[in-house]
Amino acid sequence: MAETYRNIDDIKNLLKVVPDFPKPGIQFLDISPVLRTPGAFRVLIQELERSIDFEFDKVAAIESRGFLLGSALAYNYHKGLVLVRKKGKLPGQTVAHTYELEYGTDTLEMTEDAIKPGDRVLIVDDVLATGGTAQATQTLVEKVGGEVLGHRFFIEIAPLHGRERLKNNIHSLIIEGA
Amino acid sequence: MAETYRNIDDIKNLLKVVPDFPKPGIQFLDISPVLRTPGAFRVLIQELERSIDFEFDKVAAIESRGFLLGSALAYNYHKGLVLVRKKGKLPGQTVAHTYELEYGTDTLEMTEDAIKPGDRVLIVDDVLATGGTAQATQTLVEKVGGEVLGHRFFIEIAPLHGRERLKNNIHSLIIEGA
Repeated sequence: MAETYRNIDDIKNLLKVVPDFPKPGIQFLDISPVLRTPGAFRVLIQELERSIDFEFDKVAAIESRGFLLGSALAYNYHKGLVLVRKKGKLPGQTVAHTYELEYGTDTLEMTEDAIKPGDRVLIVDDVLATGGTAQATQTLVEKVGGEVLGHRFFIEIAPLHGRERLKNNIHSLIIEGA
Repeated sequence: MAETYRNIDDIKNLLKVVPDFPKPGIQFLDISPVLRTPGAFRVLIQELERSIDFEFDKVAAIESRGFLLGSALAYNYHKGLVLVRKKGKLPGQTVAHTYELEYGTDTLEMTEDAIKPGDRVLIVDDVLATGGTAQATQTLVEKVGGEVLGHRFFIEIAPLHGRERLKNNIHSLIIEGA
């Protein structure tokens, strides 16, 4: 018998903690059971939509699980989808931003003309942890003159305080460790 | 004035050839202008849907631009989305398949229980070139007892004959070099 998924509480049980992935000591929260369960993925997208209380022109989706959420959102809203990727993966002219990690640095890129000055942008990713990636994406959007209207995440790891590094309007469907 | 996109011919002009990416000698066909142009991305997804003439249970999307198409399709059809990724990127128990490239080999992985025996699967990626990745994905799906009903691509590079390595039912929206 197929289960019915109506809201975020219904799909929360599908999340799976995978210990020591990708490195020892990290508890990875696996969202793929939500993706592959038909009704559950639909609820996830619909709940993200319910949380979006502003107009926007483009969705900036962060590689690579952010692509999964951003694509369905951009399609449903008839908006453009802009990819934010690790260094060297995007062809053509790009803008880059390098940011600090706990150990070392990382660089994100976006195609230079993907966002026009004045474009209102929604930034999407699956998980908000320390906020470094989301903050770097915000910086990239602003570098080319776009305006970040908000951030949306499926899951937020509250004890890492990523939210504090971002501007308004931030919303996560599930808040862990709050 | 916003342009109107109604069919594949309308969006074909948005594709951009980027020379020598990611390596010298390779002409990269960049689909990102289609993604970021609101009406164009919608037409792309709708045309893929018009081409799907069979029932299926799961969409297997190939990392990482296949995620963009697979996500919107899985959402619209109320189906499950299964990720096919490069080695080491998926948490938990996975199945793997290693295949030959022109120089060396590559390995794709899928979560072991993402597809159940008897699941009817649609495989999706942005570009069909030599067909190695799509064929490896087909093998992965069959390893866990799934049935591949068809392959869908945005673009097919006809002179590379990728189609010949795949089973029925194969369809690409744009065929280059035919």
